[in-house]
Amino acid sequence: MGEAASTTTPRERYRQQVRSEIKQRAWEQITAAGTSALSLNGIARLMGLSGTGLYRYFTSRDELLTELVHDAYQSLVGTLRTAAAQGKGDLAGLGQALRMWALDDPQRYFLVYGPPVPGYRSPADVAALAGEIMDIFTDACADVPDARASTPETPLEDGPGQSVGRAETASAQRLAISLRTRLHGVLSLELSGHFAGMECDPALLYQAEIDLLASH
Amino acid sequence: MGEAASTTTPRERYRQQVRSEIKQRAWEQITAAGTSALSLNGIARLMGLSGTGLYRYFTSRDELLTELVHDAYQSLVGTLRTAAAQGKGDLAGLGQALRMWALDDPQRYFLVYGPPVPGYRSPADVAALAGEIMDIFTDACADVPDARASTPETPLEDGPGQSVGRAETASAQRLAISLRTRLHGVLSLELSGHFAGMECDPALLYQAEIDLLASH
Repeated sequence: MGEAASTTTPRERYRQQVRSEIKQRAWEQITAAGTSALSLNGIARLMGLSGTGLYRYFTSRDELLTELVHDAYQSLVGTLRTAAAQGKGDLAGLGQALRMWALDDPQRYFLVYGPPVPGYRSPADVAALAGEIMDIFTDACADVPDARASTPETPLEDGPGQSVGRAETASAQRLAISLRTRLHGVLSLELSGHFAGMECDPALLYQAEIDLLASH
Repeated sequence: MGEAASTTTPRERYRQQVRSEIKQRAWEQITAAGTSALSLNGIARLMGLSGTGLYRYFTSRDELLTELVHDAYQSLVGTLRTAAAQGKGDLAGLGQALRMWALDDPQRYFLVYGPPVPGYRSPADVAALAGEIMDIFTDACADVPDARASTPETPLEDGPGQSVGRAETASAQRLAISLRTRLHGVLSLELSGHFAGMECDPALLYQAEIDLLASH
């Protein structure tokens, strides 16, 4: 990393700066009107570049989208790690950090956890970033004494015949998966405006789901 | 209703037929490439109509989208009512009917429960349709003896001081809300392909979430 920085030429730094401005414009488009509004030509116009000029920085919408997906995942990983470093690495701390991150930019949340972007295939390494997030939650879940009462007894795919250590890991994994799906359920319906019809405060329901999983 | 049918002119029937074909084309566009791909001009081209010709049937993208949203809600209400009529009106039956309906057409599911369509405001009467779906689930939840152990103790917004009857209703409502958010959590992550990175079968997790709520 240090070596790469020392060999950066002014030209390369300028290139990074333009790429960064393109991504900033892309986020503005997405925040305003969703991922489907992403338009390289529109960004080129806003920046006073020609279409071919912009294509020197990103060769396709998908290349740009992949960078944004990476940035979004890394932002979430960073947010969760910061929470943990500030002593808020338990389920409640991580859960609330996730919620604040999502409310801060719903379109960014949906880019990570929402419906697939039509015509776009996620890059293979996104699985590693998604796995990193699950690992952070699973670590927190390992501190919960016994999660069995409040999580479904879903067989994980690594099958039966586990040693005690593996059973504990499986229990933490199961808890982490339940946490993620339940929190996503509340959060995504909240971000989509679907609690308007329900007599229920999504903030309270979200916290209550965390408490239920953390207290067993 | 019968009266309205008897006064339908051939001209009006033709109009309904064209509107129905436009909606069919719209669903094809949405299924293929998401709601953002919906294009009145594209549909007009496919049907050999001019843009102004098509605008005689739907004056805007939003008018067409509103019809599709209504149709999607009504399709789900119909699916749940059919399940109930076939003796599958308990939580497991309704939950599985919801899952099959979602898997059958993920874009339709996301039109109802996904992120808002950019630039589109849902019509006011959608709240009534959403309420109808919640009522079907709440009725099924009223048959579950005691849901308190497995649902979060979220205060519903109608407040304290309930009679016994109201407390039962509140308990069924709370269970129905937990069911909807938990099932949506599993289902929407499954439809979005997010279980690829988790060592967990979403079908089993979905059923396990239903069992957990139904068995307490």
